[in-house]
Amino acid sequence: MAFPSDATLADVGEFALIDALAAHFPTAEHVLVGPGDDAALLRIRTGHVVVSTDLMVEGRHFRREWVSGEDVGHRAAAQNLSDINAMGGRAHSLTVGLAAPADLPASWALGLAAGIAEECATVGATVVGGDLTRADQVVVSVTVLGSCTVAPVLRSGASPGDVLALAGRQGWAAGGLAVLGRGFRSPRALVEAYRRPAPPYDAGPLAAQAGATAMIDVSDGLLAEVGHLARGSGVTIDVGTDALDVPEPLHAVAAATGADPVSFVLTGGDDHALLATFAADAELPEGFRVIGRVGEVAADDPDPVLVTVDGAPYEGAPGWTHF
Amino acid sequence: MAFPSDATLADVGEFALIDALAAHFPTAEHVLVGPGDDAALLRIRTGHVVVSTDLMVEGRHFRREWVSGEDVGHRAAAQNLSDINAMGGRAHSLTVGLAAPADLPASWALGLAAGIAEECATVGATVVGGDLTRADQVVVSVTVLGSCTVAPVLRSGASPGDVLALAGRQGWAAGGLAVLGRGFRSPRALVEAYRRPAPPYDAGPLAAQAGATAMIDVSDGLLAEVGHLARGSGVTIDVGTDALDVPEPLHAVAAATGADPVSFVLTGGDDHALLATFAADAELPEGFRVIGRVGEVAADDPDPVLVTVDGAPYEGAPGWTHF
Repeated sequence: MAFPSDATLADVGEFALIDALAAHFPTAEHVLVGPGDDAALLRIRTGHVVVSTDLMVEGRHFRREWVSGEDVGHRAAAQNLSDINAMGGRAHSLTVGLAAPADLPASWALGLAAGIAEECATVGATVVGGDLTRADQVVVSVTVLGSCTVAPVLRSGASPGDVLALAGRQGWAAGGLAVLGRGFRSPRALVEAYRRPAPPYDAGPLAAQAGATAMIDVSDGLLAEVGHLARGSGVTIDVGTDALDVPEPLHAVAAATGADPVSFVLTGGDDHALLATFAADAELPEGFRVIGRVGEVAADDPDPVLVTVDGAPYEGAPGWTHF
Repeated sequence: MAFPSDATLADVGEFALIDALAAHFPTAEHVLVGPGDDAALLRIRTGHVVVSTDLMVEGRHFRREWVSGEDVGHRAAAQNLSDINAMGGRAHSLTVGLAAPADLPASWALGLAAGIAEECATVGATVVGGDLTRADQVVVSVTVLGSCTVAPVLRSGASPGDVLALAGRQGWAAGGLAVLGRGFRSPRALVEAYRRPAPPYDAGPLAAQAGATAMIDVSDGLLAEVGHLARGSGVTIDVGTDALDVPEPLHAVAAATGADPVSFVLTGGDDHALLATFAADAELPEGFRVIGRVGEVAADDPDPVLVTVDGAPYEGAPGWTHF
């Protein structure tokens, strides 16, 4: 449906907008009732559902000057699809809640829907329902449902002696955000990585099949997520910076901002890379490289340091916190 | 967990708050992995899931001066549980996203969790996951998953000759909102109905078992929802005001505000009453009373009036629109 290019949500109206948004989402064989009724009805053949929810808030997770509606759609969907990936599963269905100001351009909302649909298509998922309401700032709430073909991989299964491995690019989006925050638009590869994450969606199911002992995706910073794995499993984890891949454009950004390029990789989020632990003798699935080792928590230490970098505690924030 | 009574979300911090919120939600037999991992894992024995999502925004759906965190929790959960009720199903699992300002009292957020948990307990559902982030205003996003024991009842199945029936109280919350909007706190029964809806959760499954042909819950106004049923089914529906139950306290509010008391019942939302159509000879399940008749759309009318009240078009807005 085409609206005038300057039309706002208020101009278009709730019901016409919902129809136009829903038109972006293809149906799928498992969707018995899709958007438009009180609830959607999904066929679930596996006997289980993996479910997760994430919010994306204007001014916190994105700025409309820096990213298009389509970019936000890709980012919001990727953030959620990645949570299923981090269980070793595959997403099949999403619901989307959009709260937005009345003067939001309708084209932005349609871009959002297009971006969500495109990102979902990369894993074969689709949007099955949603809600639209008014708010002072844009809030995109996505809930994702998926399934696993083998037992889901939790945060709690790592054992001393395991290796820590990483799949996917890491630090790119943080570099892109640093660039945008200083008013620049290049290096383009980093800015594009921030706008359109490329989570390694195949890596989660592959890791689960390969016997990963624990897994998490990097949403809020690599060391922060390593900390979640360590706490969840009751182990220590040492990350070796030698093993980290520091992409070339990050060196340029680091030089311009006076930062250590490795810090983007250690504390950046938003790329939705995958961290998994494996037994030391396991064969790593394609796409994973070892970046650390799992160790034992000293029994006599009342306040043990669970995460170290090259054998020493990390100085600085390990990632992003929301409050 | 107890925080100082004046502590804000920023004082408490993200992770302590998440732990305290999650402590409100009991586990359940079908929840194989609950809050705290990348996603929750639910056992689904029925072969299907019914899923719906709804947002509740401060300043649009509630004001913190008028309702407590616990009230908002009841309202947000009820709004979603009711969507499953309107399919003829029963909810089992919810995810909750909370976006809130850093200066929100932590006690308000804990009240929200308590209210959600209490409302969920009335149908045996529980919260299995969530997300917490910062925003300028409070936004509560709930997604609900449920199941049906018989085929779900859609909006599209009403046929000419069917009767329209209503279950649950209707117009009470709208009366309460009108009272609060004028700075009053009584009649108390109406204000309490606005703060704590009491949807007829048994009525949905009963109606489905009794062969309801179409069903919807009243979130945004009775006539607006009747309109959705009529459009969804391609029929006309006439509502008879004689059959509507106008609660005593609404007369007092109507007198004070100069409104017609029946208008609260016809256009009020938020009670989450249930509207269902049945074949004329069907035996109505307990709790339902006939309030209207389904008719045929005249074949030669290019712009038919689908909803009438006592045989005539309704003057005025049929309910609430978001844009």
